[in-house]
Amino acid sequence: MQNIETYQKSFIAYLEDFAVDKEPKNLYEPVNYILKLGGKRLRPVLTLMTSEVFNGNANDAMNAALSVEVFHNFSLIHDDIMDDAPLRRGQETVHEKWDLNTGILSGDAMLILAYQLFENYEPATFQALAKLFSKTALEVCEGQQYDIDFETRHDVTIPEYLKMIEYKTAVLVGAAMKMGAIVAQASLEDQNAIYDFGRYLGIAFQLQDDYLDAFGNPETFGKQVGGDILENKKTYLYLKTLELGSPNDRSKLVEIMSNDMISNEEKITSVKTLFNDSGASHATQKAVKDYTRKAFELLKTLNISDDKKQVLKLFGEQLMNRRV
Amino acid sequence: MQNIETYQKSFIAYLEDFAVDKEPKNLYEPVNYILKLGGKRLRPVLTLMTSEVFNGNANDAMNAALSVEVFHNFSLIHDDIMDDAPLRRGQETVHEKWDLNTGILSGDAMLILAYQLFENYEPATFQALAKLFSKTALEVCEGQQYDIDFETRHDVTIPEYLKMIEYKTAVLVGAAMKMGAIVAQASLEDQNAIYDFGRYLGIAFQLQDDYLDAFGNPETFGKQVGGDILENKKTYLYLKTLELGSPNDRSKLVEIMSNDMISNEEKITSVKTLFNDSGASHATQKAVKDYTRKAFELLKTLNISDDKKQVLKLFGEQLMNRRV
Repeated sequence: MQNIETYQKSFIAYLEDFAVDKEPKNLYEPVNYILKLGGKRLRPVLTLMTSEVFNGNANDAMNAALSVEVFHNFSLIHDDIMDDAPLRRGQETVHEKWDLNTGILSGDAMLILAYQLFENYEPATFQALAKLFSKTALEVCEGQQYDIDFETRHDVTIPEYLKMIEYKTAVLVGAAMKMGAIVAQASLEDQNAIYDFGRYLGIAFQLQDDYLDAFGNPETFGKQVGGDILENKKTYLYLKTLELGSPNDRSKLVEIMSNDMISNEEKITSVKTLFNDSGASHATQKAVKDYTRKAFELLKTLNISDDKKQVLKLFGEQLMNRRV
Repeated sequence: MQNIETYQKSFIAYLEDFAVDKEPKNLYEPVNYILKLGGKRLRPVLTLMTSEVFNGNANDAMNAALSVEVFHNFSLIHDDIMDDAPLRRGQETVHEKWDLNTGILSGDAMLILAYQLFENYEPATFQALAKLFSKTALEVCEGQQYDIDFETRHDVTIPEYLKMIEYKTAVLVGAAMKMGAIVAQASLEDQNAIYDFGRYLGIAFQLQDDYLDAFGNPETFGKQVGGDILENKKTYLYLKTLELGSPNDRSKLVEIMSNDMISNEEKITSVKTLFNDSGASHATQKAVKDYTRKAFELLKTLNISDDKKQVLKLFGEQLMNRRV
């Protein structure tokens, strides 16, 4: 086993070599552009790490890892169009730098390129990877659709919200890890357990994200603290306040969220107070811990050495203790 | 072997059953909508027919045929966005009936659904189908990008134009037929020959389309005759006029195409005269025949009975003798 930084480095080296040097330039330049924008490369690193957890070789998992990263970036291009986002990682988004049509078409090409990367595996592995990939990719689309639908709905429930973040974010984390297990030819039981491990950690990660968006340290948190509040996002904190808060808390929250007359600072402060007073902040932190614990419990069932279980646990702990 | 109408009927029956009855509705309703808009179902019929040409069973090829049709409709949704088209087969396009985001996301889901349909085949067939599919789908994206690029270029050559229509249209016809051959477990030689047969027929079909758009019978041609001329499209007729016409013909063509002051009728008549006088009309008809002949020559190499070769030839002749 190597450490995270080493996996990251070898993945980035592999990614550099991947640059699509094909015609037409207008189709493939945006592909290379978004892939080089950077990021933590969390998902492909998980694929490489998991393959070695199951006694495979990280090099053999490189194409599967790259497929996950190419897919993730496909979804970023199309999501940025849908969200009308001007920036991605501090740089122009593809549809801004080029145009709408380029964003659509280059995204489509990336989805296909992600499948093509599995062609490096023999038929049975190819099919296992592609099946998992299709199921996951479709769920990511469904999650994105739920997210869009929720913007205009006022009766979103907590289970619905959890399903949305599971589909939009967590299943790809689970799939990234399961792909490593597939390439390493782990047993089906281990494949499914590591998938659920990743999926639970992914949900915890997203809930943690919701929490940090409101309560993170402005000096270390990457985005603007309070951004979700200003966008009136129906996050876990918001939905939990509606569930746990007093009737007074609830009507106050709804009132503040639809009030355009108060300052940003005042809005953030008032909403955070409601999140705290209602018990929603505490409930969110508890949910993060619960999903993390659920993930860790799955480690017991894995057919690997205790050392390797420790590697996975350490990774999960680092992820949950992050402040950014 | 059954006749075309029978393949068409059984395919449509299969398609009816496919209706995606899943949540979220906003993602899958557009999928069902576009698949039910109708059309000749030419590509899936070719898959079914080809499977039986190679002594397979059309029922076994049904999922591959459906995949081709789902992919074709994915490309229609995204192309209609890029072309800003309000209508498709006389009905509202997806992005018009719903919105841009729905068009993008439902299209993405269809591309994934197309891959999922291959999961009904065992690993070796699955991989062969998915590999061919990825290669073809990427070429279709490249063809669409060339088509977009050509709109703003004034130095498009005939070979470039032929490559564009090959990628945008013809490779999917070749792939539809090759998929039938793959499912029927035809030899690799036969698979490649039938792919080229479909590809050449696809090019001939598109060149015929260019010709009919200007010279088709207004009473039987489905679209407005002269539509390409009014849109200043750089078709084969246009490019051939620039190649074969006298210096006078060429400057006249460029002048008319950029002249906004003349009536539609006058424009169409003048341009058609140039197409004829330059020899471009004749050259286009010759190119249609040449590509059809190239396709038919490949039939000789196929390892099938003469009866079946006759079926394929008859199909090609019908396609080329169409007036619509």
